[in-house]
Amino acid sequence: MNSPPGLAPPLDVSEWLNTPAPISLADLRGRVVVLHAFQMLCPGCVSHGLPQTLRIREAFDPDEVAVIGLHTVFEHHAVMTADALRVFAHEYRLTFPIGIDRPSAGDAVPCTMTAYGLRGTPSLLLIDRQGRLRLNHFGALDDLRAGALIAQLLAEPAESATGENGG
Amino acid sequence: MNSPPGLAPPLDVSEWLNTPAPISLADLRGRVVVLHAFQMLCPGCVSHGLPQTLRIREAFDPDEVAVIGLHTVFEHHAVMTADALRVFAHEYRLTFPIGIDRPSAGDAVPCTMTAYGLRGTPSLLLIDRQGRLRLNHFGALDDLRAGALIAQLLAEPAESATGENGG
Amino acid sequence: MNSPPGLAPPLDVSEWLNTPAPISLADLRGRVVVLHAFQMLCPGCVSHGLPQTLRIREAFDPDEVAVIGLHTVFEHHAVMTADALRVFAHEYRLTFPIGIDRPSAGDAVPCTMTAYGLRGTPSLLLIDRQGRLRLNHFGALDDLRAGALIAQLLAEPAESATGENGG
Amino acid sequence: MNSPPGLAPPLDVSEWLNTPAPISLADLRGRVVVLHAFQMLCPGCVSHGLPQTLRIREAFDPDEVAVIGLHTVFEHHAVMTADALRVFAHEYRLTFPIGIDRPSAGDAVPCTMTAYGLRGTPSLLLIDRQGRLRLNHFGALDDLRAGALIAQLLAEPAESATGENGG
Repeated sequence: MNSPPGLAPPLDVSEWLNTPAPISLADLRGRVVVLHAFQMLCPGCVSHGLPQTLRIREAFDPDEVAVIGLHTVFEHHAVMTADALRVFAHEYRLTFPIGIDRPSAGDAVPCTMTAYGLRGTPSLLLIDRQGRLRLNHFGALDDLRAGALIAQLLAEPAESATGENGG
Repeated sequence: MNSPPGLAPPLDVSEWLNTPAPISLADLRGRVVVLHAFQMLCPGCVSHGLPQTLRIREAFDPDEVAVIGLHTVFEHHAVMTADALRVFAHEYRLTFPIGIDRPSAGDAVPCTMTAYGLRGTPSLLLIDRQGRLRLNHFGALDDLRAGALIAQLLAEPAESATGENGG
Repeated sequence: MNSPPGLAPPLDVSEWLNTPAPISLADLRGRVVVLHAFQMLCPGCVSHGLPQTLRIREAFDPDEVAVIGLHTVFEHHAVMTADALRVFAHEYRLTFPIGIDRPSAGDAVPCTMTAYGLRGTPSLLLIDRQGRLRLNHFGALDDLRAGALIAQLLAEPAESATGENGG
Repeated sequence: MNSPPGLAPPLDVSEWLNTPAPISLADLRGRVVVLHAFQMLCPGCVSHGLPQTLRIREAFDPDEVAVIGLHTVFEHHAVMTADALRVFAHEYRLTFPIGIDRPSAGDAVPCTMTAYGLRGTPSLLLIDRQGRLRLNHFGALDDLRAGALIAQLLAEPAESATGENGG
């Protein structure tokens, strides 16, 4: 799977939760996208990443900031199934859209995780209004810095001056 | 399954984790037993009950206080399997013995949970040196009170004066 | 100032807050006494010791456990005055009795602090039902252990079998 | 005391801590200014406002964001003195510059607090690169929103297009 130069790779998702229709990054162009890559049995995701993601959704206008979870299972695949994730999302009241990263045929690491070069979970990814990946952070990032980075992207124009990414 | 009058019901466990051999309450007679009933996808267990259980194991002499987890799955059985629990215990570094409450043939509630009349998870159960159930607490109990209740049982004699429970 | 062998030294207090009359340890005989030694401008006291002291007062029956603060000013005497302490106690809603440790004529360390040999603030002191000092802990002590130590003293008899401390 | 239309009122400070020379907002023009108004015996300031102020100073480049404390004593003046504040700042390791809001002759509320119309402590004030007051928030503001607001001001130009505030 390829992506235009400079743009964040597409989300290669086998199944979506909490959304009536699949979500494409292209459809979100113009908004800042907060992508939280997690695994349901990753303690750092449960204690830090997911609560922060819920706080981000509360703090920003959804018309300006799209918040998406990405379940990037790269270990213990047999027990972190779609059914298990549905129960997990229900119990933890995760109401934002969550995409299940498509399993790779010959690799433990799923497709989107590979395309983005993620180092593990939790990872916080920020995509700007023009669709470019601007942050790829593995581990905990404090709320002050996370809030500042999102706001910095919000302050940028939705279209480049030259229109080079507008195609 | 019956139990002698006054004694805590036996642990009816289908499989044990983190112990070389099954554990029987009878074998623990003389010690105070802290039994934490939880489900791996119960947020209150993950945020409060299990961390408290780990702290209890740190705070008390294991020769005096036995700490045991009990996985009492009463909902979402299909995804809270023994395999899933093993991954969960590994990721959350739960090193105390955990018994999987035996599923009931015709009931969502497992056998030990029914025998103890538990109201849900997390539940903290305290069993005294003579094997009697002395606390059956559903929900969060603060550390001060939990520590005090355990110490209160520790201060009691291991055998009753009249030997009435010694059979 | 001397104290009978084995007994906790008396509280040498220049002024009491939050109590209609001065408090003497002798009057509390039969109860467990929790004594929290603090300074109002000590960060560890404000973040840990005083909140724990408030929790202890909530968790235990006041007829069984007496909770007392002791303002042991050993530095910055000019600004940690009785007037400042009154404002501090009001703002932080400290409603338990607080004794101001009597300043020493020739020493920065006040009288009770010296008599108890305290190492600094915060310190948690536990006195048993017979008036004996049983814990002298400098720094933070977690709630599980604090609760257990208090309960252990509560389980002891109010009078010694031989009456040796009853004089 | 007057201020040019649109500009934040000057800091009317009787004494500065942690700075070799008095600080004027005019000298900070071009930077975003984070002003934390507090009282040393205000519990919400100690538990929330001041720790957040320290985190803000860590999270942002000091050449871009100036962090300043303002001790706005409007109650208990007799005990929240300059000497007491110096001890407090030392014990709590507050190393950013702190101005003592000038007491008002006939009013409990000090001068800068009145000029800004502050409602109480803690208050978080944000001043933009052009010297205009952009946030006047009484009470706790979460880190995500605080970080976002600071970054939003950072993204604005240091000079207005028309130069109207440049005088």
